[in-house]
Amino acid sequence: MDTSIDPVLLDPAGPGADLVDLTRALCDIPSVSGAEKELADAIEGLLRDLPHLTLVRDGDALVARTDLGRDRRVVVAGHIDTVPVADNLPTRLEGAGPDAVLWGRGTVDMLGGVAVAVALAAELGAPGRLPAHDLTWIFYDHEEVDSSLNGLGRLARNHPELLHGDFAILGEPSNAGIEGGCNGTMRVEVRTRGVAAHSARAWTGENAIHAVAPVLARLAAYEPREVEVDGLVYREGLNAVRIEGGIAGNVIPDACTVEVNYRFAPSRDVAEAEAHLREVFEGFDVEVTDAAGGARPGLDDPLAAAFVRSVLDTTGGAPAPKYGWTDVARFAELGVPAVNFGPGDPLLAHKDDERLPVAQLAQCRDALRAWLLDG
Amino acid sequence: MDTSIDPVLLDPAGPGADLVDLTRALCDIPSVSGAEKELADAIEGLLRDLPHLTLVRDGDALVARTDLGRDRRVVVAGHIDTVPVADNLPTRLEGAGPDAVLWGRGTVDMLGGVAVAVALAAELGAPGRLPAHDLTWIFYDHEEVDSSLNGLGRLARNHPELLHGDFAILGEPSNAGIEGGCNGTMRVEVRTRGVAAHSARAWTGENAIHAVAPVLARLAAYEPREVEVDGLVYREGLNAVRIEGGIAGNVIPDACTVEVNYRFAPSRDVAEAEAHLREVFEGFDVEVTDAAGGARPGLDDPLAAAFVRSVLDTTGGAPAPKYGWTDVARFAELGVPAVNFGPGDPLLAHKDDERLPVAQLAQCRDALRAWLLDG
Repeated sequence: MDTSIDPVLLDPAGPGADLVDLTRALCDIPSVSGAEKELADAIEGLLRDLPHLTLVRDGDALVARTDLGRDRRVVVAGHIDTVPVADNLPTRLEGAGPDAVLWGRGTVDMLGGVAVAVALAAELGAPGRLPAHDLTWIFYDHEEVDSSLNGLGRLARNHPELLHGDFAILGEPSNAGIEGGCNGTMRVEVRTRGVAAHSARAWTGENAIHAVAPVLARLAAYEPREVEVDGLVYREGLNAVRIEGGIAGNVIPDACTVEVNYRFAPSRDVAEAEAHLREVFEGFDVEVTDAAGGARPGLDDPLAAAFVRSVLDTTGGAPAPKYGWTDVARFAELGVPAVNFGPGDPLLAHKDDERLPVAQLAQCRDALRAWLLDG
Repeated sequence: MDTSIDPVLLDPAGPGADLVDLTRALCDIPSVSGAEKELADAIEGLLRDLPHLTLVRDGDALVARTDLGRDRRVVVAGHIDTVPVADNLPTRLEGAGPDAVLWGRGTVDMLGGVAVAVALAAELGAPGRLPAHDLTWIFYDHEEVDSSLNGLGRLARNHPELLHGDFAILGEPSNAGIEGGCNGTMRVEVRTRGVAAHSARAWTGENAIHAVAPVLARLAAYEPREVEVDGLVYREGLNAVRIEGGIAGNVIPDACTVEVNYRFAPSRDVAEAEAHLREVFEGFDVEVTDAAGGARPGLDDPLAAAFVRSVLDTTGGAPAPKYGWTDVARFAELGVPAVNFGPGDPLLAHKDDERLPVAQLAQCRDALRAWLLDG
């Protein structure tokens, strides 16, 4: 099967240029995590012969760079994998014109954002369309699965120089508004121990589930903070996400585990987050099982400020904080300020009824294009 | 393989009569629940040709009755199945004489008690060994598994007349002392509901695990009663035996379930027990998943009182309450007062190191024999 995409979709001067068709073409090549090769090949096919881009392929990740000798470099990145298809491919367009809605897996998370990036990668740098900054376009694999497989993380290990930049934009869905930085996330297990016994003689044992009562009481009473960082207000959260205890209907349980997920503002680092949880659960056995620091929004950078103005001019939208953890945190770790900016409602990501108001595609493209051309 | 047991072990006048050897012979025919046939055949083989007994076989349950025209009838019952073998068969005898200990699956729960019953079934009713009451010996299957499979329950449905009696003794391990009646048991599920959400935006959901905090707090604070019934003090218990909630590390859980086991004194019936739990967990969704009423000890019956005296004379032990639910409750339901009385420490039942001080075999036999002969 030939799954290449007709490059006519990319030519902004040609009659066939159509972001909606391009988004559909990208979505209709299924690319569930681990099976991104065809889609990576198709994107490589679209960009390979463009003289203003230098390509590097790493597995199913692709980096395309301009080399115009500009002072500053902007990175635009997006993952090309999706969560599993839920009988929602091929895509389906409902309505027409600017009110049309494109239904299907990947339309929101995040092949709409990838379509915008692919279109601009082809356009900016071509004769007469020279950008104000050098540009690095990154399309990567394995974002929707275990963090150790993440294609952006792999690129950072294999080719750290390719991720270098002064500012990065991640095309994750943000309703075509700028969502700055991201909260950090930490998972801990809070455990209690007891003494097993037959439940007919419960007094010979010690109930580990009863012992967990104060842990749940503290969680129920906890008041999450709202923290202002670089002008954006981040809302935290502390929640039990799983609880488990007991082995049989007639045995006093000797162990109980509460898994807790803490989402913390980017003003707090991982060590501070852990110290806070140890304080909240003082007196209990606490083990950190997973942690990733957040990212400050970095909107005080002049490059970022210009981008904020461009989006404001195009969409009227002011920047907001990003609550979920995203790969902007990887850029933050590399010292590159980064924001989320892409078409689609993040609340529809991963849903069976994932769908994109197509008007957001052009909004995102226009805001990005204006800023990248004019600086 | 011939798994019959040499009847010489049963002849009280012969040189081979040996309760220890008989117990070993019974244990060494594995009879995990569902595979009792061989052992049932062996016991039937021992009793089939005795002229003073009439046998009825129902599946792998066996009922052997005298018909001496006595005024009153005593039932002695024991289950012949065991929990799964844990590399603890064949049996192993440690030490010698009255201090010897017999190790292995079934020695405690409850083939020691079955051996006592088989030996007395063969003896009492034979010429010169006429008992004061008519006797019904019941050996049944499937006690260690789901209650719906219980062989005694099946006999009660198929042949209710065979279970009739004025008093019943269940040979469950009780350290050769009388354990009267039993507590009832009830299981309920206490459930909370919430609203699922991504844990990065926890405020859009409602945490069902947090909602369960008051349930655990009430359990932790609960003070179980001690209730005197017919002269014995029953200790109750109310315990979470299982808790479950949450589906993923980044999802606010929309459901949580606490399974609670209530052990209640036989002065309270199932309906009263349920009313009590609905009061304890008021404001929560409570569903009864399993219930079995207890049994009063019934030691005020003259037959029982004589048995208590016989045990006191033989072992010096006064009657105590039985905490665990046993099949005495089935007899109680049929209107037959019943007690537990058998060799072995109930705390060793189901354990890998299940073992029986063999001296208790003769103690049990002697106390039962004296009472059954003299009335």
